[in-house]
Amino acid sequence: MLHRPGTTPPTPDILARLTEIVGAHHVITEQAELAPYMEEWRGLYHGRTPLLLKPGNTEEVAQILKIANESGIAVVPQGGNTGLVGGQIPMTAGHEIVLNLSRMNRVRTIDPANNTLTIEAGATLAQAQDAAAEVDRLFPLSLSAEGSCQIGGNLATNAGGIKVLAYGNARALTLGLEVVLADGRIWNGLRGLRKDNTGYDLRDLFIGSEGTLGIITAAVLRLFPRPAEQAAAFVALESLDDVARLFEMAQAQAGPALTAFEFIPRIAMEFFEKHMPEVRDPLETRHPWYVLMEVSGPRPDGSAERVLEGLLAQAFEAEIVTDGAVAASLAQAQAFWDLRERLSEVQKYEGGSVKCDVSVPLSKLPEFVRRANAEMERIMPGARPFPFGHFGDGNVHYNVSQPVGMDKDAYLARWDDIAGAAYGLAVELGGSISAEHGIGRMKRELLPSVKDDTEMWMMRTLKQVLDPNGILNPGKVI
Amino acid sequence: MLHRPGTTPPTPDILARLTEIVGAHHVITEQAELAPYMEEWRGLYHGRTPLLLKPGNTEEVAQILKIANESGIAVVPQGGNTGLVGGQIPMTAGHEIVLNLSRMNRVRTIDPANNTLTIEAGATLAQAQDAAAEVDRLFPLSLSAEGSCQIGGNLATNAGGIKVLAYGNARALTLGLEVVLADGRIWNGLRGLRKDNTGYDLRDLFIGSEGTLGIITAAVLRLFPRPAEQAAAFVALESLDDVARLFEMAQAQAGPALTAFEFIPRIAMEFFEKHMPEVRDPLETRHPWYVLMEVSGPRPDGSAERVLEGLLAQAFEAEIVTDGAVAASLAQAQAFWDLRERLSEVQKYEGGSVKCDVSVPLSKLPEFVRRANAEMERIMPGARPFPFGHFGDGNVHYNVSQPVGMDKDAYLARWDDIAGAAYGLAVELGGSISAEHGIGRMKRELLPSVKDDTEMWMMRTLKQVLDPNGILNPGKVI
Repeated sequence: MLHRPGTTPPTPDILARLTEIVGAHHVITEQAELAPYMEEWRGLYHGRTPLLLKPGNTEEVAQILKIANESGIAVVPQGGNTGLVGGQIPMTAGHEIVLNLSRMNRVRTIDPANNTLTIEAGATLAQAQDAAAEVDRLFPLSLSAEGSCQIGGNLATNAGGIKVLAYGNARALTLGLEVVLADGRIWNGLRGLRKDNTGYDLRDLFIGSEGTLGIITAAVLRLFPRPAEQAAAFVALESLDDVARLFEMAQAQAGPALTAFEFIPRIAMEFFEKHMPEVRDPLETRHPWYVLMEVSGPRPDGSAERVLEGLLAQAFEAEIVTDGAVAASLAQAQAFWDLRERLSEVQKYEGGSVKCDVSVPLSKLPEFVRRANAEMERIMPGARPFPFGHFGDGNVHYNVSQPVGMDKDAYLARWDDIAGAAYGLAVELGGSISAEHGIGRMKRELLPSVKDDTEMWMMRTLKQVLDPNGILNPGKVI
Repeated sequence: MLHRPGTTPPTPDILARLTEIVGAHHVITEQAELAPYMEEWRGLYHGRTPLLLKPGNTEEVAQILKIANESGIAVVPQGGNTGLVGGQIPMTAGHEIVLNLSRMNRVRTIDPANNTLTIEAGATLAQAQDAAAEVDRLFPLSLSAEGSCQIGGNLATNAGGIKVLAYGNARALTLGLEVVLADGRIWNGLRGLRKDNTGYDLRDLFIGSEGTLGIITAAVLRLFPRPAEQAAAFVALESLDDVARLFEMAQAQAGPALTAFEFIPRIAMEFFEKHMPEVRDPLETRHPWYVLMEVSGPRPDGSAERVLEGLLAQAFEAEIVTDGAVAASLAQAQAFWDLRERLSEVQKYEGGSVKCDVSVPLSKLPEFVRRANAEMERIMPGARPFPFGHFGDGNVHYNVSQPVGMDKDAYLARWDDIAGAAYGLAVELGGSISAEHGIGRMKRELLPSVKDDTEMWMMRTLKQVLDPNGILNPGKVI
């Protein structure tokens, strides 16, 4: 019977064998050098490890896992360390080894005629986007960490971002995988097919499993034709019900050409004005809600802008939109997106912020925000809800900034009350406690409260059979 | 230790208990009445059963499975009995009971604002399409059996069809499931969310598992805005390489508005002329290849037709397309589609036909057809390849009609040689031996030859833990 992985330190002998696999140049053991890998960027999670390994190929990953599995050593896979639920950080006991795939960052093949890119897990998302652009294709996964997050992490967490509305999440963008199982066996599922009904869908089992069922080492990703033009508008609305009406209208008018539909609350403008005045409010006056939307077109014939303008004219006419600006230049569109991307950052300047990444059926989104705001005022008078996100996906980043003047630590000590209320409401409305960030360490304890026993049994059973010794990212997800 | 399910007959006592669950009015035991359920429509598979049960709700399905699991009785779920690989037909021993969900055909909820439809497994695909249309939405799954195939079967086989290019297959169109496990436990995974990263993706494990891991009883399906207009063209080309060029061009010009791109061989026109003269060739002269393509538009402003005409002008100019017709009316577009939908039927009149539903990377499709045709001529001189299908998905229905004058049975006796050559070539080119039809009985023996040991191990392991007594559709898939 093996011990529980992660509870006792690996022996020096094991560490030496693991080091030998990748070569001494590709390990880190110095605590100072390990430090950046051991802290999650917002400072919420800290860990320790005796050894960080940087394998150079899939075979080395397989050898590492074989030894780890035989010796009961816990293995934490880490991509760009940009995760938001602590999945990529080892526990503090310091007995888990860390697997860093950043050396495995090659484009293996790119096939524009098949619209596929086969790329290794350690490549950054930006590298994948660039590789696609070089052959006049689009890899549409897009999120603010794209310069540093890695494909392996994107797939392991089923990343979302701003283009899910039109192109789907990481799951929808993946056709095939190469995975190393807990015992070191390599599964070659690198198929670049849009239709393949030969047996059970193993690919989707690993996508979103946060490194707890296997280590993704490479993937076949879907590419798309590159839009020739994009038109963006930043518009103001009186209520989230109006945002819902605008979404219905935008969908009807633009169909699949509607490539983004993000909502932003007024409080964001107040925060920007105070702390980041370089982020300019695109509109002259203040409004309760804003939407940043984008329409794309395959041909450079101005039709994206015409569709967007037609839509806005109709929305003004119907008194759904009260003010708005269509980007007159690429620079102005970029400014709209820059504002959108800095919504997380600006909250830092107003003290503690409780972050709840939830989703609800689209039809319930206005009700969710209305009721959650009321609930926050009850739990913590003066707390300042800052709900924003991907309206078109029903995905609300329901963040709550602390009351003005309150002690930050005292506020964050109430995290579970505040987040718990938002989660409870999301679940009541048929929603999810994690839309796109995953479970990791942060929400692991909550999982049994939102899943029925049968679902928990299936998840535990899958974990048990695919990782019987429990070496893969223990203490995460399940 | 239980016997192997399906090897011994259920006792009269068990049959009585099962009958009691659904009520005597909802069982069939007479062999004459059972006959239509026991034969696959092309006559390739025949089976026998002592009892066909028509449960009225999920709880009854659960009770049936509980008893079956305890007693080791094999259960074959059957939808509209339109499957093409024999997955829905019990074995000939006559010891397996059949579960028919046609009474469970209710729309549970429809939420146009969330673009979701929650519907029971026994509803036909056409019912789902109609329910969506009633609230001005599109459920885009579309295939020739849509009037009789059922949602449960569509999801269990991950159905494809003619709109996969734009909207994805059944997997991509499903957000949530209700599933009864082998032991009768009910999993309520009926979530209508576009983003939900809370643990392992169980939904996709059941989709495409052909009733061997659980019985799907209801689903939350994705709806889309209904296109306001569609323009269709039927064009002629000299070679499949030109078809590939046209696809690249169509994709670039129309982007996501390209909603269908089907290819058809010349031999189809010869068969129609001979056997179904009511199906008119849309063009005056004969050509080696044809493409039926469709461009959709969200607004009724004629832009779909303009895009299609612009594209065709460009393709004529580049000498990729040699002849063509844009549908001048809905009736003419319907005639194009009618021709496409009768491609399977017309082959019947030319004797035996070996059917191979394969996919390859799009970039390899012309090579696949060229080499497969040469191989057929080598194996069986005079055999007549009839390759057609969903070019945009890399999906070739590589059918081969018998040589003129050959004995049909003698020809079909060579099925394995002929299909084997096509499968081998598809696999060599990175393709799949089943693009959209599944594995069922037909391709079960082939599976280990196209999957690596690790993949087979994972599939067997999943089957073992989710259906430890092996009662669910034994002898199918795995």
